[in-house]
Amino acid sequence: MDRTSFRDMNCSVAQALEVLGDWWTLLIVRDAFFGARRFADFEASLGIAKNTLSDRLKHLVDKGVMEKIDAGQTGPRFEYRLTEKGRDLHIVLTALRQWSDKWVYGPGNEPLLVKDKRTGDPVSELRVTDSDGNPLSLRDMFSVAGPGANEETLRMFAPAAKKHRR
Amino acid sequence: MDRTSFRDMNCSVAQALEVLGDWWTLLIVRDAFFGARRFADFEASLGIAKNTLSDRLKHLVDKGVMEKIDAGQTGPRFEYRLTEKGRDLHIVLTALRQWSDKWVYGPGNEPLLVKDKRTGDPVSELRVTDSDGNPLSLRDMFSVAGPGANEETLRMFAPAAKKHRR
Repeated sequence: MDRTSFRDMNCSVAQALEVLGDWWTLLIVRDAFFGARRFADFEASLGIAKNTLSDRLKHLVDKGVMEKIDAGQTGPRFEYRLTEKGRDLHIVLTALRQWSDKWVYGPGNEPLLVKDKRTGDPVSELRVTDSDGNPLSLRDMFSVAGPGANEETLRMFAPAAKKHRR
Repeated sequence: MDRTSFRDMNCSVAQALEVLGDWWTLLIVRDAFFGARRFADFEASLGIAKNTLSDRLKHLVDKGVMEKIDAGQTGPRFEYRLTEKGRDLHIVLTALRQWSDKWVYGPGNEPLLVKDKRTGDPVSELRVTDSDGNPLSLRDMFSVAGPGANEETLRMFAPAAKKHRR
């Protein structure tokens, strides 16, 4: 797969994919949310080759999603921990999980449930809402070029025309 | 990358990644949301090799994310359209876009803004909430094995123990 072209894309989705690297990356992040910290934790959970895991962890550290910390008391013992940037990926993981629970496994067949500690109820489905918290459907939204748009994005999403493309 | 192992994982995130295939897939879905329908539309937008695009579109149709329709009036003219399963991916795309807008481009540098038609305000950031719509932080949630858990998932997320793993 040619990743070079992603790097040049003036698109937040493409840039997120550029940072996340490949699917292994996101599963490493998933495991970090579930408490994995040491190289051996990720290796055992993912059944991934050592050199692949090493590459992906280095990539995540380079991109600021994880940090490598020497947590040893009596000698070096390295741990990988999510940064704030990494912890913010829980929304991406939740979106993927909920989509899959609905469309791949189907209701009643979810491998894992994420619940509210206080009530024990499953957390709500993610929804796009307006500033008052009311749900918005695809028809209620439009896309316009933002302040970081390049010429191509401006051509496609001219802010003046407020063209609806969907 | 060894995809076989993903297929066997008892995990909604891994299964979502299995369906979404690779990053091109998600960018094809993105373009479909922006109005691309014909093979040439996707080709022009993505700068992708014909055979790669053809593979990925076939994969998306096989997985039920898109459907291939003959929309020709006077002869065959094939279009690719998102199914309901595909349209539901707008949450995944929104999660990736918002994360990237915050952490890669940074506030004030967004290539694209998605707004509420009624008010013209940007849509809100996705948040995980309880059933009453109150935001939940990572500390407010726990994960337990669901009805579709296999033995390995049950070992890791025993529902009886309500063990918190994060």
